[in-house]
Amino acid sequence: MNVALLIIAHAPLGQALLDVTQGTLGEIPIRHALLDVNRDTEPDQIRRQAREMALALEQGDGVLVITDIYGSTPSNIACALQDMEQVRIVTGLNLPMLIRVMNYAGLDLIALTEKALSGGHDGILAITPAENREYCRHA
Amino acid sequence: MNVALLIIAHAPLGQALLDVTQGTLGEIPIRHALLDVNRDTEPDQIRRQAREMALALEQGDGVLVITDIYGSTPSNIACALQDMEQVRIVTGLNLPMLIRVMNYAGLDLIALTEKALSGGHDGILAITPAENREYCRHA
Repeated sequence: MNVALLIIAHAPLGQALLDVTQGTLGEIPIRHALLDVNRDTEPDQIRRQAREMALALEQGDGVLVITDIYGSTPSNIACALQDMEQVRIVTGLNLPMLIRVMNYAGLDLIALTEKALSGGHDGILAITPAENREYCRHA
Repeated sequence: MNVALLIIAHAPLGQALLDVTQGTLGEIPIRHALLDVNRDTEPDQIRRQAREMALALEQGDGVLVITDIYGSTPSNIACALQDMEQVRIVTGLNLPMLIRVMNYAGLDLIALTEKALSGGHDGILAITPAENREYCRHA
């Protein structure tokens, strides 16, 4: 089994992130699906699609749903899944979050949700001029 | 004048983020350029390209450089800009960060760098089942 991953994002962002992750790691080591949100998609239809995808992914260990931005259509669509007990939703998808999730794909749903959050946050850094010199010496 | 934005990211991530931002806001209200990093790009050549882009963008108020992930090629390339005084580098690009930068495009370099950081961090949230119900009521 293992937790599965459902990405819900404005097209073409989800696929771009999956492509870069695949290029970085050589594989996507977690059962996953991508729901592309286009501006002209009919809301009820895409909510049904989200539900079908989550149900298809769920094999007993739950589904981590990651959306690109809080308060926009992809996060609203994730609401269609709120009555599934084994679903957690994280917003603000970035590459460090996705790589962290891949690196800890064997964790349970609660722990993997925490890794998504910490991976996303830890990856957001300012390289100040001083740190920059230190970082760049090793780059 | 105003600060300019240089995005350095693994292709096709930067363009995907710009496309979604443009679709969300209707425009990209900041002078900007995108440097796509492909795995087969020659390092010295792309460092030169980064430098040329930053110099072309700089009109006196500085350049905010945002990369997709710390410690990987795009952030290493940003090192080519370390001797430019009016450059700040932020890693971990996500959609909330980019939207926040657009919304505060008139700020100075230091303040805009802070907005990029806070926008990126604020956008990473777990919607717990309880919060989810509250959020979804209004979605």
